[in-house]
Amino acid sequence: MRIAILGGTGNIGEGLALRFAADTSHSIVIGSREESKAADSADSYESRLANHGIERAIEHADNTTATVDADIVVLAIPPHHVGDTIKTLGEQEALADQILITPAVGMRGDGAGLHYDPPSTGSMTELVAKRVPDSTTVVGAFHNLAADRLADFDADLGVDTLVMANDEEARQQVIDLGNELTGIRALSAGSLVNAAEVESVTPLVINIARYNDDMHDVGVKFS
Amino acid sequence: MRIAILGGTGNIGEGLALRFAADTSHSIVIGSREESKAADSADSYESRLANHGIERAIEHADNTTATVDADIVVLAIPPHHVGDTIKTLGEQEALADQILITPAVGMRGDGAGLHYDPPSTGSMTELVAKRVPDSTTVVGAFHNLAADRLADFDADLGVDTLVMANDEEARQQVIDLGNELTGIRALSAGSLVNAAEVESVTPLVINIARYNDDMHDVGVKFS
Repeated sequence: MRIAILGGTGNIGEGLALRFAADTSHSIVIGSREESKAADSADSYESRLANHGIERAIEHADNTTATVDADIVVLAIPPHHVGDTIKTLGEQEALADQILITPAVGMRGDGAGLHYDPPSTGSMTELVAKRVPDSTTVVGAFHNLAADRLADFDADLGVDTLVMANDEEARQQVIDLGNELTGIRALSAGSLVNAAEVESVTPLVINIARYNDDMHDVGVKFS
Repeated sequence: MRIAILGGTGNIGEGLALRFAADTSHSIVIGSREESKAADSADSYESRLANHGIERAIEHADNTTATVDADIVVLAIPPHHVGDTIKTLGEQEALADQILITPAVGMRGDGAGLHYDPPSTGSMTELVAKRVPDSTTVVGAFHNLAADRLADFDADLGVDTLVMANDEEARQQVIDLGNELTGIRALSAGSLVNAAEVESVTPLVINIARYNDDMHDVGVKFS
């Protein structure tokens, strides 16, 4: 399979690119609005993987090209760019029958911590689903992973990620993909309408890291 | 300390009563709207504890009497009774300088699962805080514990509970209390304004149990 990671130049995109490259045999393409940024990131990830003993080519492209050629597209971009990015991909007819994975979560902060701040559609995952062509299958996944921990090969993960989709086959495909990653267990959280409760774990784990000594880059595990 | 468990005749109240009795030396009082129901439950819990090798007296009272005499009151009642119960306790001047712990979560269901359904105050925890006398300290805790698992002495817990309060001392006191329970780790989630993200884990763990084979009475652990 060919996996495009849009916004693969930072944050959660970096960790997902490195883990997919290290733990799976899928082709990995870094996408960015500027192809040169994608190229820099791909080079840097190849070096990090090589330093870790993994010789692996990471491809790069602008977001549109990366999307057109992919089987699975991961929308690893900041939540406030999600709407614009989907609009651009739509205008350029880049989205067709791909699986589009969204890990984005809207949050707002105050003095006490971070708070879940969903769009009026109920969740970011459902907003994405509303805006893509009918042929594109939206799957929510990889919301509750701490970016720095994911990008650190020396970190023990031992965490869960929750996967939502209305299409059962696509949901299972992304669960299987998640389970290919060492230290990550992918669980089903059902349909897209269940996404809000999953997304809102993201501010929660950040608040837990803030309020408890010796807890950093907190992940979640269900049992 | 004297801990009153209002609504201690069912659901999460049963598990909390049994665990507090088994794992701590605090006095435990079961409260109910009808004292006779509280008496029946207290008897039944004493028997279950005795069968488990623990000789322990469990007291009982109507909700108002149980509250007046307690240091800590746990509001282990269904969410749709929370408003009325607090109103009654207020009218009878039962609430004074106790710590009032609320584990209640508002949820609604549809074909896909359960969904977090908070009151307009933002969370049930904040609604409780808004309605009690100023002298009463509200603490959110014990939201994400599966009732059946909590009430089963043979079940391994190994789960976390999250504690919120605006008063740091009360928060720490409830964290310490939670940590007295074997198999439960109590963590801070900060102020009451952070309660919504904690409460919404309750429908999430129920959805996870529904959608994943071999997962029942799901709990959560952060690391």
